[in-house]
This record gives sequence, C-alpha cells and structure tokens, in this order.
Amino acid sequence: MKNQDQNKSYPLLEGFKNPQDIKQLDSNQLNDLSEEIRHKLISVTSVSGGHLGPNLGVVELTMALHLVFDSPKDQFVFDTSHQGYVHKLLTGRRGEKFEAIRSTEGYSGFLARDESEHDAFGAGHAGTALSAALGMAAARDLRGSNEHVVAICGDASFTCGITMEALNNVTSATQRLVIILNDNEWSISKNVGAIPRYLNELLTNPIYNRLHHDVGTFLNKVPGGEQLIKIGQKAEKGWKSIVLPSSLFEKYGVRYLGPIDGHDLDALRKNLEFARDSDEPILLHVVTKKGRGYKPALEHSERMHGTSPFDIESGRSKPKKKGAPPNYQDVFGRAITRFAQKDKKIIGITGAMPSGTGLSHLEKNLPEQFHDVGIAEEHAVLFAAGMATKGFRPICAIYSTFLQRAFDQIIHDVCIQKLPVIFCMDRAGLSPNDGPTHHGLFDIAYIRCIPNAVSMQPKDEDELVDMMQTALDQNLPAFIRYPRGAGLGVPIKDKPNSLPVGQAEVLRHGEDLTLWALGPMVQDALAISDRLRAEDGLEAGVVNARFIKPLDTKLLLRNAKASRLIVSMEDGVLKGGLGSAIAETLMDADANATLHRIGWPDEFIQHGTNVSRIREDYGLSRDDMMEGIRKKLHIAPLNV
Amino acid sequence: MKNQDQNKSYPLLEGFKNPQDIKQLDSNQLNDLSEEIRHKLISVTSVSGGHLGPNLGVVELTMALHLVFDSPKDQFVFDTSHQGYVHKLLTGRRGEKFEAIRSTEGYSGFLARDESEHDAFGAGHAGTALSAALGMAAARDLRGSNEHVVAICGDASFTCGITMEALNNVTSATQRLVIILNDNEWSISKNVGAIPRYLNELLTNPIYNRLHHDVGTFLNKVPGGEQLIKIGQKAEKGWKSIVLPSSLFEKYGVRYLGPIDGHDLDALRKNLEFARDSDEPILLHVVTKKGRGYKPALEHSERMHGTSPFDIESGRSKPKKKGAPPNYQDVFGRAITRFAQKDKKIIGITGAMPSGTGLSHLEKNLPEQFHDVGIAEEHAVLFAAGMATKGFRPICAIYSTFLQRAFDQIIHDVCIQKLPVIFCMDRAGLSPNDGPTHHGLFDIAYIRCIPNAVSMQPKDEDELVDMMQTALDQNLPAFIRYPRGAGLGVPIKDKPNSLPVGQAEVLRHGEDLTLWALGPMVQDALAISDRLRAEDGLEAGVVNARFIKPLDTKLLLRNAKASRLIVSMEDGVLKGGLGSAIAETLMDADANATLHRIGWPDEFIQHGTNVSRIREDYGLSRDDMMEGIRKKLHIAPLNV
Repeated sequence: MKNQDQNKSYPLLEGFKNPQDIKQLDSNQLNDLSEEIRHKLISVTSVSGGHLGPNLGVVELTMALHLVFDSPKDQFVFDTSHQGYVHKLLTGRRGEKFEAIRSTEGYSGFLARDESEHDAFGAGHAGTALSAALGMAAARDLRGSNEHVVAICGDASFTCGITMEALNNVTSATQRLVIILNDNEWSISKNVGAIPRYLNELLTNPIYNRLHHDVGTFLNKVPGGEQLIKIGQKAEKGWKSIVLPSSLFEKYGVRYLGPIDGHDLDALRKNLEFARDSDEPILLHVVTKKGRGYKPALEHSERMHGTSPFDIESGRSKPKKKGAPPNYQDVFGRAITRFAQKDKKIIGITGAMPSGTGLSHLEKNLPEQFHDVGIAEEHAVLFAAGMATKGFRPICAIYSTFLQRAFDQIIHDVCIQKLPVIFCMDRAGLSPNDGPTHHGLFDIAYIRCIPNAVSMQPKDEDELVDMMQTALDQNLPAFIRYPRGAGLGVPIKDKPNSLPVGQAEVLRHGEDLTLWALGPMVQDALAISDRLRAEDGLEAGVVNARFIKPLDTKLLLRNAKASRLIVSMEDGVLKGGLGSAIAETLMDADANATLHRIGWPDEFIQHGTNVSRIREDYGLSRDDMMEGIRKKLHIAPLNV
Repeated sequence: MKNQDQNKSYPLLEGFKNPQDIKQLDSNQLNDLSEEIRHKLISVTSVSGGHLGPNLGVVELTMALHLVFDSPKDQFVFDTSHQGYVHKLLTGRRGEKFEAIRSTEGYSGFLARDESEHDAFGAGHAGTALSAALGMAAARDLRGSNEHVVAICGDASFTCGITMEALNNVTSATQRLVIILNDNEWSISKNVGAIPRYLNELLTNPIYNRLHHDVGTFLNKVPGGEQLIKIGQKAEKGWKSIVLPSSLFEKYGVRYLGPIDGHDLDALRKNLEFARDSDEPILLHVVTKKGRGYKPALEHSERMHGTSPFDIESGRSKPKKKGAPPNYQDVFGRAITRFAQKDKKIIGITGAMPSGTGLSHLEKNLPEQFHDVGIAEEHAVLFAAGMATKGFRPICAIYSTFLQRAFDQIIHDVCIQKLPVIFCMDRAGLSPNDGPTHHGLFDIAYIRCIPNAVSMQPKDEDELVDMMQTALDQNLPAFIRYPRGAGLGVPIKDKPNSLPVGQAEVLRHGEDLTLWALGPMVQDALAISDRLRAEDGLEAGVVNARFIKPLDTKLLLRNAKASRLIVSMEDGVLKGGLGSAIAETLMDADANATLHRIGWPDEFIQHGTNVSRIREDYGLSRDDMMEGIRKKLHIAPLNV
C-alpha cells in the first residue's frame, strides 16, 4: 500500500488542526489547498482505488461548505457519501488511515457516524440525504437550536423516489434547509430519464441563467447588493412565476438558485452565505465536473467513478493478471446477451449500473432489449413486473444490497402475482472495500420467507449460466445470487444445462459428515473435506446446495441419517439463512441430526482489505471453520 | 351477510354480458346505470364493509374508461385498486360473490390477476400503477401490438416515490401511455405536502383552467374542433411554456390536460378519446369527489374511505358491542400521547394513516409532536432516522405490510447506524378482509436477520404499552408488532413496566411439553394447554416469548431439556420466523430436543371472512393445532 508519490508535501493540509482553520486562508492559499487536495486524492486512490471522479468534482464545493458553515455544529448530509473524501481531509482524517482508505487499516470509503463527529449521517446507498436532512432540520426547529443543516445531493438523487418523497415534505417540515444539487450529469453511468434532461434545460435556458445569476450571485458582488437580494427574494417569486416557467423545485415550495459554477470558490461562498441566511428552504444548483483536474478521470468518467488502483500517468487500471478468471458480472453480461439474442422476450433491466452488473454488454449489442431506469430500484422491479404480464422475461440485474430497496415490490408485485421476473444479484456476499452499506449478506434470509420465490446460488460462473437457463425454463420469480469479483475460471459450456429445480448436487460422498455449501463456500467445503481426510481421517461429503428455496430436503434428510454431522456453509447472515432452512427441515422431520452452521454473525460487517482478511477478522477463515467443525464433531457422536 | 336492500332491482347492470355492452347505452341509460352502480356500492358495503368513498368517486370515470377502451385487450392499471369495485361490476363480477365481497365466499376487495382477465395488474399497496403500466406499455411497443395501457392513479400516488421514479422514466420507455390523475384530494386521510398543494393550484389557476379546458374539452364539442385540437396539441406546447408556468408533469415530458370534471361523463369520454388517440404520453387531471352521491360518505370522508358495515340511513357504523375490548390501535394512540406528554422528544410519524394507526389521538393532542408524511414509507423511516440523530425518539407507526417498503432504510439508515427509532407495526398478522397484499406475515422473518434490531410482540394491549416503555428505555432500533383489531380487554396499568430485554415470560409450568407462543397465539397456547390437560392428561407449560430478537435462549434451552417437546406458535410465516429462531437455537446448542412449529405456510394467504375462518382454511384452527401437537408427541418420546 505504498504511496506512489510519497515525496509530495501537503503544507496546508498538514497544518490543519480543525475544520475552522480553512477560514484563515487567503485566496491564494485556498487555491493551493485545492491543488493539494486533488493531488492527495489522485495519489491515494491510485493505490487504494476508490471514488476518484466524484471527489475531484467536489473539491471547491466541500471547501466552500467548510468556509461558510461550522462543522460539527452545522451539519452536512452527503448523499451516498462516496464523495466525502474531501470532507474527510478537511475534518482531520489524513495520514496513514487516509492513505489506507477502504482497507482494514484505513478509513471507510463512505461517511459514517462512528468514524467522526463531522459525519452527521452515514450513507452508501443513494437518495437518502434530503430525507434524513429534513428529519434533522425538523428536530432542530422543534428543539429550537440554530445550527444549519445542508443536504448535498447529486443530480441522480432526484431520479430516486425517496428524494422526491422528501421534496414533497420539505416545506411542511421546516422553513430552514439548504439543499445543494451537485449536478455533474452522472450517477455512475450517464444519468437517464426526464429529470436529468430537465436540469440540463435549466443550465441552457438563458432567461434562467441571467435571472438567477443576476439576483443570486451578481448582486452579491455589488455594494449594497445584499440588501437588494433580500428584497428581490420576496418580490422575485411573485413576478417570476407569471412570466417564466417556474422551476420544478419551486413547485415543491423550495426556492431555486443557480446554476452556479461549482469550481468558482468565490461564487460558491457567496451563494452558500446567501442560502445560509435565507429564511426559506433553498436549493443551490451547483454545476461540477466529475474528475475535474485530472485528465484521465475527465475522459473516462464511468470507469473513474469508482476505480481500482491505477497508473497516475495514464489513468489505466493495473492490468489483470494474464489468464485470471473472468468476473461474475462479465460472465453474466455475455450470457444474458446470448440468451437475449435467441429470445427477443428477454429484457435486461438495471438501475444505473450497466457496467457494474455487466449489462453494458447487452446494451451494446441489443439496446432494444436493455433498460437503465436510473437509481430507482423500486421502479426497476415494478417495470419488470409490468413487462412480465405481457409475456416478456425481464431480468433485473441489481446488486444484492440495492435490491433491499425493492423488497415490497418483490413481495407485493412480483411474488403475489407469480410473475416470472428473474433477479440476478451481483455482490451477494462481501463487498470488502465498501463495507456494511454494500455487503450483500441479507438476501438469502429476506427472500427465503417469500412464497413463490425460487432462490439459488451457483458454485461457479458456468453454473451461473445454467441457473439463468433454469430460471428462464420455469414460470416463477427466480433469484440468482453470486459474489462480487472473479469466478473460478472454469470453462463456460456452449449449451447451458437446465437444472432440476430444488435438487442439490453431490460433489463428494463421505460417511462421517456432510458439508452443505452454497456458492463460493463450495470451494471451501472441498478444501475442508480434503483437510479432514488428511488431518483427521474423516470422510466428509460435499454437497453443492444450489437451491436455497426450494431446498433439497430429500437429500438433506438422507445425509442427516447417514452421517454424524451436517455442516451448512453460506456467504450470508446466519439468522434466517440456508443453515436456518436446514435447521427447520431437520427439526420438522425429527431427523435427530447434529448441525453446525457457518455464515456471518449477527452484526454489521465492517469494510476491509479483501474477502480473506475480513473472513479472518470475523472467524470465517478456513482454519476457523475447521476448528468449529472439529469442536462440533466432539459433541456429535453423542447424538447418534 | 344479507343485503339490506335486496328488493332493489338492477335492470341495466344485470343485463350486462360483457364490458362492451355499456357502449350500447344511450345517455339516459348511462345515467340510470351510474345510479344502479352507486346504489349497489352502498348496499353491498353497508353489509360487507369496504372502500365505499373511493368507489363512489370513480363511478363515471370507470364507466367512461369502459366506454372508450376495450377491456381486456386494452388494459387498466388501477393504483392500489381499492377503487376497483365499479370496474368489477362492469366486467361481469356481480351476484353473490360481489354481495359477499371481502369475505371467504366473495371477491377480493382489490383487483387481482387471478380473479379476472380484466384485472391487468393487481395491487393493494399504493403508488405502483404508473410504474407497472409503464412496463406494460414498453412491452407492448416492443412486441408491436396496439392495445392501450391506462394507469389510474390517485393524487396521493404522486407523493409516493415509486410513482415519481416511474414519471422520470415515462418518455424514455414509451410514447403512448394514458395516465389518469384521479384527484380527490385525499389519500386515506387528507393529503399532505407540496404536491397536493400544487394540484390544488392547478385547479384554481384561471389561466390553466381556461387554456386546458378550451383546448382539451371545449373544442371537442365544436364541429371541426377535433382537427383544431390536433394542431393545438403541437403548437400549444411551444408558446405555453414561454408565457405560462408549465405544469410539473410537462417537466417530465408528459402532456397535461385538465382539470376535467370527473362526474361529467361526456367530458370524460371526450378527453379519454383524445388521450387514447394521442401520440405522446398524456396525463388527464380528473377531479372527483370521494363519496359522491351519498351524503354520509361526503361528510365523513376518512371514516367512509374504508368502512365497516354501516346503517345506510345515517351512515353510522354498526356500534361496537358494549364493553367490547379496545382496538390495539387505540391503545397505542392513547399510550403514545401519554408518553409524548411527558417527553417532548417523542415524535409520532405516520405515512397517511393517522386514524388507522391510532396516531390521530397524538395529532389532536400534541400536533407539534406528530408528522404525517403521506404515502411515503421510505421517507417516513429516513425522516425518523434524521430526527433520532438529534436526540429525538421517533415512533414510526406503520402497518407491518407497508413497512416492507422501508426495508432498506431500516437496514441502511436505522440499524447500521444503531439509531433508536421505534417501529410500531399494526396489522401484524392477518388483515382478513383485505387478503394477501395486506397481511402482515413477513415482518418477523425480515427483521430477524438485521443486526442491532430488537423485535417483540406483546401478548395483550397492556403489554404493548410495556413494550413501548421498554423500547423507549433502550438505545437501539426497536420493532413492536401487534395484530389488527381488538385486544383482550385487559386493564392498562397506570405506570407501564420496562421489560427486561430478551426475557420471555413463563405463564404456566408444565413438564411434558412447553408452548412458546407469541402475541395473540399466547391465548391459543393457554387454551391448548387446558385441553391437553383435560383431554390427554398432559402438563403443557406456556411461555409468552415476548422477544423474537433477542430470543430468550436460556429459558428455551432449559425448557428443551426439561420437556419432551417445544411447540412454537406465531402469527407469521414459518420460514425464517420465531420457530425458525428456536430451531436454530436448539440445533446450535445440540439440545437434542423435539420441536413442532405452528405458523403460516409458505403460500400467500387469501382474503377471508375473519381470522378464525382463515385459520380454519389454512390448518391453523385450535383443533388443527391440537392434532399437530398430538402427532408430534407420538414421535417425541423416541428422542428422549
């Protein structure tokens, strides 16, 4: 984790004791500071990876926030908070822990209340800032304190339902809230839908531009202008709504000010001061450039949104090892494209994640069969349900953690109506560098309780394609989960198999105990079986469970009868998971069996360097598993 | 279930063979038909209960839909679909099954795809219609068929995030979609927030009124006017956006037409025909009167939204039996008011359900400590989370089934951050007359997998208040579930107890078996214990489990050691529920115990006359439970 550029010094940044210090800097120093920050961002993410583009875009905005407001008394709520690196740097989070950001030794890549008093509200999923900030503002008003609450939302937030629910409630909840619309025209990929188009219209509408610039910013530079603004603030609303299309935000009772150049520190300061002193909810439309100040990030905005380690000179990601296995997402992307080529009824749907899910492959090849609905998981699932009623076979490619957003639509719209929507859930299991907001550890449990759902996980990337075929061959809602990152490198069959639904796969027979493993845990099970034979002289059978629901209860009960111990192994939470399904089955059948359950404990798993490091830290290394099984085996014989 | 008014005849309605027949009627007959329908609605709901107000409001609108479109080829997607009674009547669903609506023998109170080919998309939760309709329209465009898709949304839908997510995607998904904004200014209670205020502005803005009325409706009545409309349709957009505030919907690329009198059948027809033939997505703003044609429903809009059986003359609900126990919601409403009087930090939050949740009691007494955010469960929970960061103690009163909407906010915003938000989940268990979209059977399972959550259910309404005290006394997210309807009639203590978290309550000792029961099942357990003693000579202990999480594993393991059989009894799905938690615990501890799990099977439970009828139909009557336990007892001794 060595910094490529450790000789560069950061005299201003390193002199900071607290976030107030920035207020002592003159404009030259501020300019130098912004350079130091950009340099630091590029240097650190080139080694650690991380959200480079969004942070380069908000350097001046974040500086202006700290110049105008007083954190932690005043509170910033950053939407998604992947753009919080600059805020971290300005609030004392530097040094080794910043260099090691997103690894076990470093800070989180997101904001978190338990990391700093300057993180007023943590996040990782998009669209929550306005809603949370509104709660904070209402609480402030009720208790009668005078701090400011500032929500910093990306333009994509306004394509997300929660933000719009909050917007509907702004004026009934508070008269004092500053909303920053940080408009960079991107969510992760390019934004979609009417709202981004509308925001662009605001940017290019000359009347708007002149009006808002004049009143909001220009007057501030004129002596006595501040007084004029106060008057204008009242008057403007009246006449403007007659002669001008009033902005979307004003229909929600929120005053709109902008567009403001998000890299002009002076303009930002003045507008923020105006907003701070405003006696009504106000939205500042700030236009920023994702990747600002670093050419490769400007040129490759999507790749540099959240990047893996890269070469600073070229901006290129460190090349994959030759012959390294492909990522699950790429196998998925190619497979759905092949399926969709043969069947025009197959539709890929993503919520602003074409690259991350691999659906970009479909988009490139069959754009008509591809839909990106923006950061709008609820709509993604409902849209799919609607299509399914017309005989289409929509496949929603949504990360496990983000699919939590559509839990009600899964129950109420898809499963009650038995619509054959297919869910391909990438990032099921750990998302190591991202941490608790991004791990996909709950889906086994939250889907298992839903009637009509078929839920499965492949042992490798070839079986992923088999499971897609299986899902397409049946007429029920289907959920396929698979981990982030690389598969095993197994060859993908030309013609996928349709698996018998609810049937597990016996990989190895063994009379002493049976390991029931799911997904990547199958490899662990095979290794543990080897070790048990070599080290303990025990024969451990290995079953690739394949289906969480319906569970292969027949095989399970046969195994339970034949062997001393069943071990369940899953990359999900223990409570309600596969092991829980096995426990239910064994007890319901009075199987008189012994069960050892391996999975994630009942706590939120923090971010860490990689999967194996986190597994070690939480007692899920192979050694830990071996030890747990051995302990249980000491007890097991008593039951036979 | 006798109809109070069985002598009234319905010559037109009864003559209908299929929904096309309405097109043969002349305007007098149409007028008579609307009267027949209203009469039928009042007469049936006076006996069965149901959504009277909303259906009285859409009589003409639904007739107009069937006059202009051809169901089932053309498809109507009714939002929430509680206003679908008229549609049912017009699509052949009459007779005994309509008279018995919402009971086991009758039709569902909502639309359902498996009830009729005329129900294009089922619903029960609000805000889904536009999104689903958009998926259907996109599918139609892709397959190149020419049917129409019409989404019928209430005004409250536009305060709900999903609708806004869909609105953002309309123009990128289709060029042909008819959206009806059925504006009656009410969700269930009076609507809240900026959108309702904005819609009202549209209604009262004279320029809008004239412009849209002239172009949309008036011209239609003029010979040759239709041609003018076509021209106007193109031209209007251009100049209007310069001189007039363009409507919110037009910012989303959706053409707005209205307001239209929703009880003027002629105007409705003409506007619907115009919309049908439009080559761009179009929204008709239709103004209806909830309860139209029935004075008591007009005067008591909230009570008559979804009503219990009532006296037709006065509109009064059949009085409760004297001395009948209070409903849980009322106990909750009074309790939160008492708590909130003592502690200004306690805030009640509802999503458009002040009466249903009982929070109206708080609203009346302490309006400053009450928030109704509209049909916006995600925002409700995030707003609460925001308040909790400032030391407030928000209590979200949201039905179990609707809280599914906020699953991600519960994990990502409340539980990861350990914010002490309290969730009071009414309607946990069956909502008998409403059916699968409204039963609250999943929350035990979906909350049990979330770290930091404390989850509990009281045995009676006094313990509900104890649990509220318990939740307030700790510093973690807390979930309290309780059933729809009446408590047991136990007295409420003046000073509630704070219960030891994670400790169950032993109600009866018994050495043969132990019944671990949750919530209303505690009464069943006591009764079954009595019967087992009387009929089988067995001593069955009864434990009030109280906490699903943390579970009282200590007591459970003691019981498992001491008795032949543990029986879990819960009003929730078996998969992942309390019994599942017990199975996990027993197996993890190698308790060598026998477990019998009682709860709801892995299928969606249909609507029915009442709890006991549904229990009978699904094998959960007390007799069924007795039989199940006896069967298991035959096996149990073998294990000891």
